[in-house]
Amino acid sequence: MAGNTFGKVFRITTWGESHGPGIGVVVDGCPPRIPLDESMIQAMLDRRRPGRAVTSTTRKEKDRARIMSGVFEGLTTGTPIHIMAENRDADSSAYEPYADLFRPGHGDFTYTMKYGHRDWRGGGRSSARETLARVAGAAVARALLSPAGVTVASATMELGGVAARPADINEMAAAVEAPFGCADKQAAEKMADCVAAVKEKGDSLGGVVELRAAGVPAGLGEPVFDKLDADIARAMMSIGAVKGVAVGSGFEAAGRMGSENNDEITPEGFASNNAGGILAGISNGDEIVVRVAVKPIPSISITQNTVNREGEPTTVSTSGRHDISAIPRINVVCEAMLWLTLADHWLRQEAI
Amino acid sequence: MAGNTFGKVFRITTWGESHGPGIGVVVDGCPPRIPLDESMIQAMLDRRRPGRAVTSTTRKEKDRARIMSGVFEGLTTGTPIHIMAENRDADSSAYEPYADLFRPGHGDFTYTMKYGHRDWRGGGRSSARETLARVAGAAVARALLSPAGVTVASATMELGGVAARPADINEMAAAVEAPFGCADKQAAEKMADCVAAVKEKGDSLGGVVELRAAGVPAGLGEPVFDKLDADIARAMMSIGAVKGVAVGSGFEAAGRMGSENNDEITPEGFASNNAGGILAGISNGDEIVVRVAVKPIPSISITQNTVNREGEPTTVSTSGRHDISAIPRINVVCEAMLWLTLADHWLRQEAI
Amino acid sequence: MAGNTFGKVFRITTWGESHGPGIGVVVDGCPPRIPLDESMIQAMLDRRRPGRAVTSTTRKEKDRARIMSGVFEGLTTGTPIHIMAENRDADSSAYEPYADLFRPGHGDFTYTMKYGHRDWRGGGRSSARETLARVAGAAVARALLSPAGVTVASATMELGGVAARPADINEMAAAVEAPFGCADKQAAEKMADCVAAVKEKGDSLGGVVELRAAGVPAGLGEPVFDKLDADIARAMMSIGAVKGVAVGSGFEAAGRMGSENNDEITPEGFASNNAGGILAGISNGDEIVVRVAVKPIPSISITQNTVNREGEPTTVSTSGRHDISAIPRINVVCEAMLWLTLADHWLRQEAI
Amino acid sequence: MAGNTFGKVFRITTWGESHGPGIGVVVDGCPPRIPLDESMIQAMLDRRRPGRAVTSTTRKEKDRARIMSGVFEGLTTGTPIHIMAENRDADSSAYEPYADLFRPGHGDFTYTMKYGHRDWRGGGRSSARETLARVAGAAVARALLSPAGVTVASATMELGGVAARPADINEMAAAVEAPFGCADKQAAEKMADCVAAVKEKGDSLGGVVELRAAGVPAGLGEPVFDKLDADIARAMMSIGAVKGVAVGSGFEAAGRMGSENNDEITPEGFASNNAGGILAGISNGDEIVVRVAVKPIPSISITQNTVNREGEPTTVSTSGRHDISAIPRINVVCEAMLWLTLADHWLRQEAI
Repeated sequence: MAGNTFGKVFRITTWGESHGPGIGVVVDGCPPRIPLDESMIQAMLDRRRPGRAVTSTTRKEKDRARIMSGVFEGLTTGTPIHIMAENRDADSSAYEPYADLFRPGHGDFTYTMKYGHRDWRGGGRSSARETLARVAGAAVARALLSPAGVTVASATMELGGVAARPADINEMAAAVEAPFGCADKQAAEKMADCVAAVKEKGDSLGGVVELRAAGVPAGLGEPVFDKLDADIARAMMSIGAVKGVAVGSGFEAAGRMGSENNDEITPEGFASNNAGGILAGISNGDEIVVRVAVKPIPSISITQNTVNREGEPTTVSTSGRHDISAIPRINVVCEAMLWLTLADHWLRQEAI
Repeated sequence: MAGNTFGKVFRITTWGESHGPGIGVVVDGCPPRIPLDESMIQAMLDRRRPGRAVTSTTRKEKDRARIMSGVFEGLTTGTPIHIMAENRDADSSAYEPYADLFRPGHGDFTYTMKYGHRDWRGGGRSSARETLARVAGAAVARALLSPAGVTVASATMELGGVAARPADINEMAAAVEAPFGCADKQAAEKMADCVAAVKEKGDSLGGVVELRAAGVPAGLGEPVFDKLDADIARAMMSIGAVKGVAVGSGFEAAGRMGSENNDEITPEGFASNNAGGILAGISNGDEIVVRVAVKPIPSISITQNTVNREGEPTTVSTSGRHDISAIPRINVVCEAMLWLTLADHWLRQEAI
Repeated sequence: MAGNTFGKVFRITTWGESHGPGIGVVVDGCPPRIPLDESMIQAMLDRRRPGRAVTSTTRKEKDRARIMSGVFEGLTTGTPIHIMAENRDADSSAYEPYADLFRPGHGDFTYTMKYGHRDWRGGGRSSARETLARVAGAAVARALLSPAGVTVASATMELGGVAARPADINEMAAAVEAPFGCADKQAAEKMADCVAAVKEKGDSLGGVVELRAAGVPAGLGEPVFDKLDADIARAMMSIGAVKGVAVGSGFEAAGRMGSENNDEITPEGFASNNAGGILAGISNGDEIVVRVAVKPIPSISITQNTVNREGEPTTVSTSGRHDISAIPRINVVCEAMLWLTLADHWLRQEAI
Repeated sequence: MAGNTFGKVFRITTWGESHGPGIGVVVDGCPPRIPLDESMIQAMLDRRRPGRAVTSTTRKEKDRARIMSGVFEGLTTGTPIHIMAENRDADSSAYEPYADLFRPGHGDFTYTMKYGHRDWRGGGRSSARETLARVAGAAVARALLSPAGVTVASATMELGGVAARPADINEMAAAVEAPFGCADKQAAEKMADCVAAVKEKGDSLGGVVELRAAGVPAGLGEPVFDKLDADIARAMMSIGAVKGVAVGSGFEAAGRMGSENNDEITPEGFASNNAGGILAGISNGDEIVVRVAVKPIPSISITQNTVNREGEPTTVSTSGRHDISAIPRINVVCEAMLWLTLADHWLRQEAI
């Protein structure tokens, strides 16, 4: 039973392979009468477009989004919104050497084991290009929630082992166009050095992204399984490169005592935010705070051992147009998944 | 839209409050002809029963599980399996002082904001007692997968800041009855000191639990959203005390280079397991490795500031029968959520 | 993938076999703060209790419903509501002769083909006793919608070939306790003769039930697949004895011209109701009108040919405590399914 | 909560309005390695294309289907299959007179009540053109089931009050290209007279379509709610023009006795098929037999009373390019919904 739909009330279903004719998303469950046009989608898509950051692939794609349904005279109609973009600069020939072997860290092996037949061109369905559809869908979620006062921002907190100092949500929002999506200029300079060195070696880098959402009212989240933090965790971990998710004090909470980690409550609100804005799986009105661990891009030009489809040993070194790090292009994808989760829970809360 | 169902094919729906007449679970989607009896459920329930560990509440509950349907002559029939246990030793009067105020770190505030009416007795639905139903459901999942060669184990890797040395799955399985569920005896002794000191202060402790599953075949997991790691993350984060989830190298991956983090492939299998057994959201046949961050129990006897329902400042200090740490009772709950996730994906893979 | 859950937002999951320890339902998704007590459930259950009508089985069951969770101080809490009733007067020995053969018209054959193992006692899960749980769940739906002005009624329109004259919703509601649930006294007298004759022969009877719902606002129903009429059709056809469903002019529409079947619209509302209150899958504010065809009870004391589990020919004649007709006990079950469908779509409409 | 997805394991999600840029369907859950190409989709689409039958609209659409994803080297990959067709011959100006009034029998009124904003061009989302996407999705279902020996056929059993004699599945299959999709030539001649007369008057006609599926193994269907007949009923009733659904003996069962309606079982199989191939919601291995009532097309050139958006009385007469009857174009749509339901239950049965 396949799993290409996200959300229960605000639902997206994505389709498309990296080197097929296009990529798209059907948004079902967006309420009617929400102002929506292609420029709102394009603005978010442009943030994940390849070729903009020094860490990014040189693949050139305009990623021009087209609304195919569900919008009439500038307003949503309550019917499914289909958004698609064509794939243009796909060069499948670069992938032919990998058609019959399994690149380490990629889905080549597991897709083959699961499906027995896979589109190897550009990684097919397991390509990060699939996230274009998520971002397009999230632009609709944003169009729904933004007028209600919800804001989402992200920033790079670590890249290649270089940590940035903490930033508040405004600093994070201001850093959208900053190098590496990092709100800490000095850290970003060190990151630049690190990236240059690693690029030289043909290696790649991981990092940590922090996300914050403000303006989320208390009450979102559906215990006991569809808790807001549970669905956020799933949303983030569904992104290919993400290997860890933490809410609020996260793994630091493990080393604390209750008296340190509890957020006392005052008539003015919570005295601290170790909860990351979520208590017992329900938003508490405070800022939602999430951190995700991003693994290094598995495509590297250093030679690695692997096997081919017949299980015979071979080696591989990837020379395609790959990112050095999923950061900062992944940041907007993480934001997208947060928008989508919030929109779904926003509407779920309407129905109680 | 409420969220008390977990899973899409192997589905559990739980019901019950801490101090209501009972707690139960309906398992829908278990295949027919699986041997199942109450002792198999009881064995798992006994591991989370209160009053067994030094960190645990002194509430006495037999937690006697009864199968109400779906099993005939010792075999499942393919129809819904309802399992329930009565609540007996519930003392609601101890909660009366908290009926009109919000205990920090608990769901009192958010349940009130969301529902406008809540059963405050023993935490009502937000009580950890709710996990009894999950464990009962997981016993059915285990009855399904265990004969197919799947094993799941967990161990405490950190408690109160004391870290344990790494353990393999056999050591973990052997530590089920060990102090604090910890496979490292020396660490456990230090944990004991720490627990004693914290108990003295009336405070509580967090920690880290590691889970491993062996015998999981390659192919489980449904990209792009219902990836195996995404669903595991959601499963773990749906447990009240869990604030972080990591798969494989997790947050450590953030500081690594691709050449370090990729698992090379040999004719004998993967040369390392930084992936934690999951590649591109699909199991790769290697051991599934998951870590969760457990926050300290919010109920402490140290006085804390809070507000009452009217928003007026007050203080609270909890003197009920509470655990010092969710560990080690939570360990079997984490295992339960892993069994449930694996059973669901096991059957989902059947349907492709 | 099993199917014991009905509804997407207002959801019920039922469990239980005819001769197991009990029957129950978990209602998930009922909003909080709805007044609910056991008497409201009992009132609906009493209408389907065996032994009340001349057409009914003589099995004696008190069918005493108990609320196990989700209600606190007389109000729903927004958490799962579990309602159960014990099975007491189950006499499984009467079913032993059928344990190894397939009763014509029953699920014995198909349950065996599907599951390979079945609880044959009293029909197990395929028993009409399962509908007790639906009615209990529907009592919660009614508690939600009734204060909003929704009413549902049903009446028998045909029994054993005897047709009743049309009745409006008030006449239908008034006929709840009338013989055969029929609002037409003269027809009911003929039905009584027919029933007596058929009882004498040991045979059974089918019929037609009409359902009406008033007070349903325009706007319920979710095109293009979860249309209100589509979900009503599914709801009705999920009842064991139902073989046909029609909305509004139903099968009569097949013989009409557009000019006859269209409902003209006036400033005062629709000039006719051939649509049965549903246009393009969405309620139009008019009365919902549904008819269902009920097949004769398959259990008859006339000898019939069948085969046993080994496929060998044998004969069967059922002498247990069976109804002569599913009517009128089925009427409240049909109403229950309509309440459940309306409650689900009521909440779904909230979330757009 | 919107409803544009059909199925639980084999799932289709459709998008598109009558006069938007196109219409499409995402099929998620189709197993990998199924041979599929555009010609297989086109063959089914051509049967519902406008302008082929005397009863049909004169709108000219090539309805050229394009596979956008999920197929690689002629085989499905297990990833989402997106199929779309462009809208070309859409003439929205013809609909301008109806932009502000509610055409009787159409969704204009209810869409406005539900969504508050609608695409009135060509009926927007409520247009029968939406069924193109269903048929395209069903072509994938057919590609899955056809090699397993399943066949589906339909035939017109009544049109404008003219009844056809019963036909077996082979006769039905042979009548695909027959006038009015009717297997009875003499009846078809009378239908032709009737259609000519009604066309003259500017009126429209309803009818009855029968569907049969052979080769369906015993065991499909998921009690107690997702019974095969329940899901078929929902599938059929989700088609705009359908007002009634009957399985097997259907409404005739209401007038029968159990001894007449039960299907006796012999070592060679069932002695009759009043069950329509479904017992207790599970296929019994016999032919699936379904009848649907099709209402007359609501667009007629006879003047009718209605109101405009302001509720003021007005009249309407439709002069666009409309069908006289949904039959026979609807026949392949009914077949499509049966294919989709069978494919979903086929895979659901795999997962038990």
